[in-house]
Amino acid sequence: MIHFGDRLTNRISDLGNPTVVGLDPRLNQIPEFIIEKVIDEFGETTEAAAEAILEFNMGIIDAISDIVPAVKPQIAFYECYGYEGLRAYEETIKYAQEKGMIVIGDAKRNDIGSTAKAYAEGHLGNVDLFGTPTPSINADALTVTPYLGTDGIAPFTKVCAEFGKGIFVLVRTSNPSADEIQGQTLGDHLMDEHVATLVEGWGRDLIGDSGYSSVGAVIGATYPEEARVLRNLMPNQIFLVPGYGAQGGGAEDVKPCFHDNGTGAIVNSSRGIIFAYEKQGKPSEAFAETARDAALAMKEDLRKLF
Amino acid sequence: MIHFGDRLTNRISDLGNPTVVGLDPRLNQIPEFIIEKVIDEFGETTEAAAEAILEFNMGIIDAISDIVPAVKPQIAFYECYGYEGLRAYEETIKYAQEKGMIVIGDAKRNDIGSTAKAYAEGHLGNVDLFGTPTPSINADALTVTPYLGTDGIAPFTKVCAEFGKGIFVLVRTSNPSADEIQGQTLGDHLMDEHVATLVEGWGRDLIGDSGYSSVGAVIGATYPEEARVLRNLMPNQIFLVPGYGAQGGGAEDVKPCFHDNGTGAIVNSSRGIIFAYEKQGKPSEAFAETARDAALAMKEDLRKLF
Repeated sequence: MIHFGDRLTNRISDLGNPTVVGLDPRLNQIPEFIIEKVIDEFGETTEAAAEAILEFNMGIIDAISDIVPAVKPQIAFYECYGYEGLRAYEETIKYAQEKGMIVIGDAKRNDIGSTAKAYAEGHLGNVDLFGTPTPSINADALTVTPYLGTDGIAPFTKVCAEFGKGIFVLVRTSNPSADEIQGQTLGDHLMDEHVATLVEGWGRDLIGDSGYSSVGAVIGATYPEEARVLRNLMPNQIFLVPGYGAQGGGAEDVKPCFHDNGTGAIVNSSRGIIFAYEKQGKPSEAFAETARDAALAMKEDLRKLF
Repeated sequence: MIHFGDRLTNRISDLGNPTVVGLDPRLNQIPEFIIEKVIDEFGETTEAAAEAILEFNMGIIDAISDIVPAVKPQIAFYECYGYEGLRAYEETIKYAQEKGMIVIGDAKRNDIGSTAKAYAEGHLGNVDLFGTPTPSINADALTVTPYLGTDGIAPFTKVCAEFGKGIFVLVRTSNPSADEIQGQTLGDHLMDEHVATLVEGWGRDLIGDSGYSSVGAVIGATYPEEARVLRNLMPNQIFLVPGYGAQGGGAEDVKPCFHDNGTGAIVNSSRGIIFAYEKQGKPSEAFAETARDAALAMKEDLRKLF
């Protein structure tokens, strides 16, 4: 069994590219030629929405799978269309994995123990199907929230150990009001630093040959000073870094999320890649190749850092 | 538009019963006669799992809808079976609403603003379906987590205001490790008390004629001392109280979650009701009527408090 921390680190190293592309498919930004096709076939239904999302994602994945190590579908944009949307989410995961990509499900799940176990088994492990343990959604990793403490995390780390999967725990998010909870002061340190020490402990038994744990951390790119502190508190965590591009962070902002040797972080861009055709004024038929160009530009931007 | 806080308060008052039944359908506890039937029809598939869950839930709902104001399906036990499971979740919600019940989706969702908006629209409001705003999962309320602060909550409260829906924000959970984050000390108060003041603010514009807001709070029954403090900090919040029965809390433990007049809280029981037939050694064919008996016993147990 290869640890997830090693799998991701190795794939980043093989491609020389510490980026993950966020698959956040907003229906009103999917190219018109795809929309027309699915409405022709399925009408204006949630089934059509799911097909549009899937076709769009497959185009993106085909265009980037040889240059980008991972994709991160944000499940909110799928489950908002109910079960048809979740079908598109599952099929997107399968397709990306077939193309050799690592899939980080961005779901921010968590709950008390027995419920967290159901999430862990459903998203990463096996579910009980009439007595037979069976893979279900089967992503490679999942984002989770820490608010319930160890009880809500242990079922995930158990599944990670058994199936070579990973989790990324929310520690510091990139939004303006993050400080309302994460930035509160506990004596001489901040709440997110306290959570960082918990995350470091949760990941200690899942450190692979690369030195990185299968338990990573979500660290927003918009607080570079704080990122430096968190990097020291979690030396073995891979940082999943949202906030590059659309959320305001640039390459210099994400630099403190990496170790000095350029490892230990993977930077996400969603809209900046998948809807690059809009920003660049390209025809929508060129959405996939424009996404590839944007992904290559991001790779070069990050490569300059080290 | 009737505020959710009023709808729930009125329904509790009409039935004289401040309880919500958690629909957490574990496949290995669903009666054998249902399992055999769905396997006959669909084989050992996720479709069969979804059908078993739905048939079981419908039996429970039929048995309790005239005595219990609300059900709370825990989405983890549905989405672990992928899109077929989510279909069962959606159909459960529709069925319970047709029978006059209020449905609280227990999903603990949250994310940054634009993503939280997708969750809010998908679970409670309308999604964009090719330009037409369309209801999707359409629960009456949803549980959410607070870790990202106001940004992650505002999209939900906006949808609540527009559609007469509600949210319950995690403040104090019932699990043993809850203290690791929620019980941390910020100067002279605890983190959960800080979150309580945020929740009180988030709900201030959604207070109805009943005096209760459509923004409620999840308050575990296993910390009665802390519940008293939180009750004072959030006078207008309806407390959704897990932890009664299976998680160790009894009627006396949940008492501090209510105001002195017996309003302001709704107490959840899941396994203690839906799988009561196992604990009482009844034949599985009697699962629904045994659930009704257990729900009536719980109602009596709580009624003695005030």
